[in-house]
Amino acid sequence: MSFSVTILGSGAALPTAHRKPTSQYIFCNERHILIDCGEGTQTQIRKAGIKLQKITHILISHLHGDHYFGLVGLLSTMHLLGRDQGVTIYGPVELEQIVRLQLEVGHAKLGFSLTFVPLNGKEHKLLFEDKLVEIHTFPLKHKIPTNGFLIKEKPKERSIIGEALRESGVSLMAVPFFRRGEDFTDESGEIHYADDYTYAPKASKSYAFCSDTRYTESIIPYIQDVDLLYHEATFTEKEADRAKATMHATAKQAAQIAQKAQVGKLLLGHLSARFDGVEAHLAESKPVFDNVVVVNDFDVFEV
Amino acid sequence: MSFSVTILGSGAALPTAHRKPTSQYIFCNERHILIDCGEGTQTQIRKAGIKLQKITHILISHLHGDHYFGLVGLLSTMHLLGRDQGVTIYGPVELEQIVRLQLEVGHAKLGFSLTFVPLNGKEHKLLFEDKLVEIHTFPLKHKIPTNGFLIKEKPKERSIIGEALRESGVSLMAVPFFRRGEDFTDESGEIHYADDYTYAPKASKSYAFCSDTRYTESIIPYIQDVDLLYHEATFTEKEADRAKATMHATAKQAAQIAQKAQVGKLLLGHLSARFDGVEAHLAESKPVFDNVVVVNDFDVFEV
Repeated sequence: MSFSVTILGSGAALPTAHRKPTSQYIFCNERHILIDCGEGTQTQIRKAGIKLQKITHILISHLHGDHYFGLVGLLSTMHLLGRDQGVTIYGPVELEQIVRLQLEVGHAKLGFSLTFVPLNGKEHKLLFEDKLVEIHTFPLKHKIPTNGFLIKEKPKERSIIGEALRESGVSLMAVPFFRRGEDFTDESGEIHYADDYTYAPKASKSYAFCSDTRYTESIIPYIQDVDLLYHEATFTEKEADRAKATMHATAKQAAQIAQKAQVGKLLLGHLSARFDGVEAHLAESKPVFDNVVVVNDFDVFEV
Repeated sequence: MSFSVTILGSGAALPTAHRKPTSQYIFCNERHILIDCGEGTQTQIRKAGIKLQKITHILISHLHGDHYFGLVGLLSTMHLLGRDQGVTIYGPVELEQIVRLQLEVGHAKLGFSLTFVPLNGKEHKLLFEDKLVEIHTFPLKHKIPTNGFLIKEKPKERSIIGEALRESGVSLMAVPFFRRGEDFTDESGEIHYADDYTYAPKASKSYAFCSDTRYTESIIPYIQDVDLLYHEATFTEKEADRAKATMHATAKQAAQIAQKAQVGKLLLGHLSARFDGVEAHLAESKPVFDNVVVVNDFDVFEV
């Protein structure tokens, strides 16, 4: 799988025996990204067989403890294991002070650089891009400033039809043009059309992470048509009042968002500790949006 | 058991599959005390079947993360579970800022009071006493200021010999005097001797916690004759250089301290992640001090 999401924690504020607090590992075209880092994430990473030291980007949605209390421990472990490659952390502005204070009082000097990129939970923004991947943030609606994230594959190159190229005798200099979908004019002035020598590229996939948030259609423009959407569903409709009071979503609401945004597949997580099973979540989400899964810790999804 | 120690984490800075970072639960005469609180302690407490909400005193030895990164998560969980009883936290002065900052940025208002008692890692001090228990701190020698802890049962009352009392016809008003070991003079001026009406009280037990520290005989006056001593043994003599450089102790050194302080039993813990087994630790400690155990997570010891 070149683009996958591993659920490291599917629970809400109160960890249970089976649901640890929020964290997800995203592998996208050789990029290794961690979203949120609740307490115990480093242990979950080890149990999942993920190579901790490959992670270079850490995205923190907001500063409720179940989304970041494991961060400084994770960074300490990276250091103890001899890391020298830098880590970039995207999160609320106070996060830098929290992390640096804890490193400082422990006289811990990390062997790698930490770069903090402050997020304010109020705007859509491209956070990172290279030739393989783009990371965007967009605002969620929760009790404190909270950031959603969108991870997209960059448009892929077209594949060359080797036989057509050989038979035509077009110069190999044309190949990079064709891969990008551009036509190529040779020395004699003849135009060779990319369409004749290439297959269309594989579709670029995208994944959106929305936790924590109340029901809000304001996120739809950012998550429209994503292949995979993770949306929190802390509660079900039975606890709709509680959802409203705590600015969380119900399973039905998450399905409504998925349906309106026409996403490919919906993952529900951040379940309150009160739920033993997933039946209630499925019963109210499936009629609204059929391709839905309630995630468990260590589930892996291909985007 | 009226006085017991439950090992919640027996590992060092790098957690392993079987050894979580430092934490211990001490039950002493109805008092519920937590020493250190590495990441994941709240999960270990649940797995051990300990009632989280009974804990009223939390002692933090020092501010290396493997001794306190689980604290703010533990407090959050206490709050979410509806706690209203206050908690007193004894630890390095910066701990209060670290905890309060994280609660503040999450807009978390705890439903119970937090009292911080600052420790400087430099002095012996009685931290708490009531009629059942005493908690003392004393200085260890580590890279940053670090506090050892001594938990002692208060001297117990003598038991009344009911038959002797009945036969003598001494007033029942004498009982509280006798329990305290005091003689009682009745209205006629006759003296009744406590020894004649009571059995000697059960011995008061004591437990000392020493982690993290290099070998230092300076702690011996504080831990002399304790019934149970936990002393860190991050390394063995094979890694003596590493122990020296990091200001940790070897298993042999811990045994030497136990032997010189004439303690009842020695527990070794805080093992470096490099050790799979405990043989090397036992091989070098037992010849020096025979009554030694290398602890594992979830071990329970009667003091």
